[in-house]
Amino acid sequence: LTPSDPSLRASSRLIEPADQATVRRNNLSLVLRHLRDQGPRSRADIAAETQLNKATVSSLVAELEQRGLVRETGVKHAGSVGRPARILRLDGARVGALGLAINVDYVAVYGTDLSGRVLVERRHAVDALGVPPAQTIATVAGHTRAALADLDRAGVTPAGIGVAIPGLVDVGQGGVVVAPNLGWRDVPIAERLSTAIVAPHVPVQVDNDANLSALAEFWVGGQAGTPNLVYLTGEVGVGSGVIVEGRLLRGAAGFSGEIGHLPVDPGGTRCGCGRTGCWETKVGLAALVGAAAPGDTRSPDGRSLRDLEDRLAEVVRLADGGDQGARDALAGIGRWLGYGAGLLVNLLNPQVIVAGGCFTLLAGHLLPAARLEMDRLAVAGAATGCRIVPSELGFTAAVRGAAGLVVESVLDDPTAVSQVPLLRGYP
Amino acid sequence: LTPSDPSLRASSRLIEPADQATVRRNNLSLVLRHLRDQGPRSRADIAAETQLNKATVSSLVAELEQRGLVRETGVKHAGSVGRPARILRLDGARVGALGLAINVDYVAVYGTDLSGRVLVERRHAVDALGVPPAQTIATVAGHTRAALADLDRAGVTPAGIGVAIPGLVDVGQGGVVVAPNLGWRDVPIAERLSTAIVAPHVPVQVDNDANLSALAEFWVGGQAGTPNLVYLTGEVGVGSGVIVEGRLLRGAAGFSGEIGHLPVDPGGTRCGCGRTGCWETKVGLAALVGAAAPGDTRSPDGRSLRDLEDRLAEVVRLADGGDQGARDALAGIGRWLGYGAGLLVNLLNPQVIVAGGCFTLLAGHLLPAARLEMDRLAVAGAATGCRIVPSELGFTAAVRGAAGLVVESVLDDPTAVSQVPLLRGYP
Repeated sequence: LTPSDPSLRASSRLIEPADQATVRRNNLSLVLRHLRDQGPRSRADIAAETQLNKATVSSLVAELEQRGLVRETGVKHAGSVGRPARILRLDGARVGALGLAINVDYVAVYGTDLSGRVLVERRHAVDALGVPPAQTIATVAGHTRAALADLDRAGVTPAGIGVAIPGLVDVGQGGVVVAPNLGWRDVPIAERLSTAIVAPHVPVQVDNDANLSALAEFWVGGQAGTPNLVYLTGEVGVGSGVIVEGRLLRGAAGFSGEIGHLPVDPGGTRCGCGRTGCWETKVGLAALVGAAAPGDTRSPDGRSLRDLEDRLAEVVRLADGGDQGARDALAGIGRWLGYGAGLLVNLLNPQVIVAGGCFTLLAGHLLPAARLEMDRLAVAGAATGCRIVPSELGFTAAVRGAAGLVVESVLDDPTAVSQVPLLRGYP
Repeated sequence: LTPSDPSLRASSRLIEPADQATVRRNNLSLVLRHLRDQGPRSRADIAAETQLNKATVSSLVAELEQRGLVRETGVKHAGSVGRPARILRLDGARVGALGLAINVDYVAVYGTDLSGRVLVERRHAVDALGVPPAQTIATVAGHTRAALADLDRAGVTPAGIGVAIPGLVDVGQGGVVVAPNLGWRDVPIAERLSTAIVAPHVPVQVDNDANLSALAEFWVGGQAGTPNLVYLTGEVGVGSGVIVEGRLLRGAAGFSGEIGHLPVDPGGTRCGCGRTGCWETKVGLAALVGAAAPGDTRSPDGRSLRDLEDRLAEVVRLADGGDQGARDALAGIGRWLGYGAGLLVNLLNPQVIVAGGCFTLLAGHLLPAARLEMDRLAVAGAATGCRIVPSELGFTAAVRGAAGLVVESVLDDPTAVSQVPLLRGYP
């Protein structure tokens, strides 16, 4: 099961009067995914296993070789007679993907080739709230050009750029509808970034950071392959990304997963969204840093984020050192985390909830209390069997998911990769 | 898009080394669904549109005719030359489906043929809480045999029985894990009902009533075909059924949609689940009947359900008659309904929320306030565009969904319908 299920396309050629180009693209995807999932094998193996005919497989493989996606890797002697079969494998080394994650105080950059080799992994400081979106985009574009140049030097052609945004994203238009923690509203980020990067042949895709983090967990995280999975971001804001039966739950317009603004405390603190007592005020970064000084409920405003991170480090130090006040405060936050987890368990019945971001730093203090509360609230009781675990991807989940989006695009449509070497020469 | 997407099967013959019987079954399903969705047409049309070859289509059609699922309905003269083509259509009249919905005080029975003609539609009183499950099952089995006899007299062979249960259901095992409002725990209902009906050739499927209601809305309700839809049951308990991209969201074990037990009021009334202040205590039947006498917060215990229904009728009478106290109380309940709707909007981003059961009786008084609260809580604001509407299926949603489950089973696997007439003679 993969979120971009090839079956939809494979079947469309049976049900819809599909044109030749669509059939060809679907079959290229089928062969490429087959090699990725099943490992190296001969043309005859591929034909037998996919039920495509041998001539078609040979033609598809030839095109995938031209696009730098498949190569021959040796021969297999099937027996004492007959020609040895040439073995093919996915060629991951020549085509790459770049992921970006734009946050309030940093942009993360992650470059990989299709085999998963990491070529770029960096974080750069930005001040998204302190400057207009255009200036942040210009800064991000500069870092992106540098990363593209690194890929170029490694002999890797980028198939695309994926961008993770902490906010509501119009995936189709590649635009940010609203990202409160960046202070962005109606920013056509894909178009502007593409223009600023000056690499019009490299397509830019955008999605919500929680969605991309959930996909990264599903693809490469500690819970990879778990078909029903929820990821909780643990940042200033807390959102969720939901995988159902191996597919990302996007909803009608891509606005799903916004669990953070459930009002849980009418007398509580003011939330970044303008409402009062939202769930994320109980479990987000502001609540976590408050564990060091329980009376201090200053809400984060981005400009003091560096300060917040210092205070979070102090909380970790205190709690790990055995400070009972900090531990009690974190257990209280853990119970609130379990409240949200219980809601997710009852509504979505996932197999696992992955707590990411800041939650991973404090997992040992938060999760025991969260588990108790989650189990208490589960209507199905023990039959639910849902686990809550810290992410093993730390703060890289979103940016890995952004790069993964590009990799999946190539697997979905190998014709998106050029047959001729791209013009190169990044600054 | 349908919840049981044929593409998964269609593609499996491409990707997996499928056996002959599987390929045959998938192709029978493909042709049958094609005729259902596209309307009457010739064998040549089916071959061209499905990309199956003509000999295969002829063979598939012959089998579907033998199974009483397809018949010839006339001829089409394509032009001045050539043989006229015989036109085929789905034969809905000979194969039927029976739906049951077991509730605390009644069982609903709904019999239909594949064309959607209603053959049986009845409600019978039961007292699920007052007697052991075995006795309720015996009563339900009696009503079921009578309904099967009615189908028999109409010349309709039942392809199966679907059962809706207000509780957690193990769909694979056909068992009730727990149904608090029936007082049932670990009841293998499919097996016991099948034994009690004495019709071993008629398979029994079981699912949660909210799930089946959501499917009924998606298949035949006022919002039919809306791919992202949530149904809210409005009974003693309040659950939800969630359709995402045209598929029912079941979760890992089929326990999804349990929104009713979100704790929203620590100082509130005790819930049927044993916890305090669950959301369903704010919006369920007990809250609704309390609108007539706000001080009266007696929680329903099933034995007084008849009394509850009388009180509900009184609330409808008062509110429709302009009683300000009742109207204010209902507006308050509407706001709580909007609280849950807002949560669903933020987490699932549906296009529409369908309020069913008792909510339909009071929609004019509840939904205006619910809409305001839902819109206030929507993180994406107006961009969400989610509507909340009353169900047009009233109290029949679950039982229609139960029958629909059987219809979909036949469309998925036409070989489940016997090629020879079944032995008949129900009491």
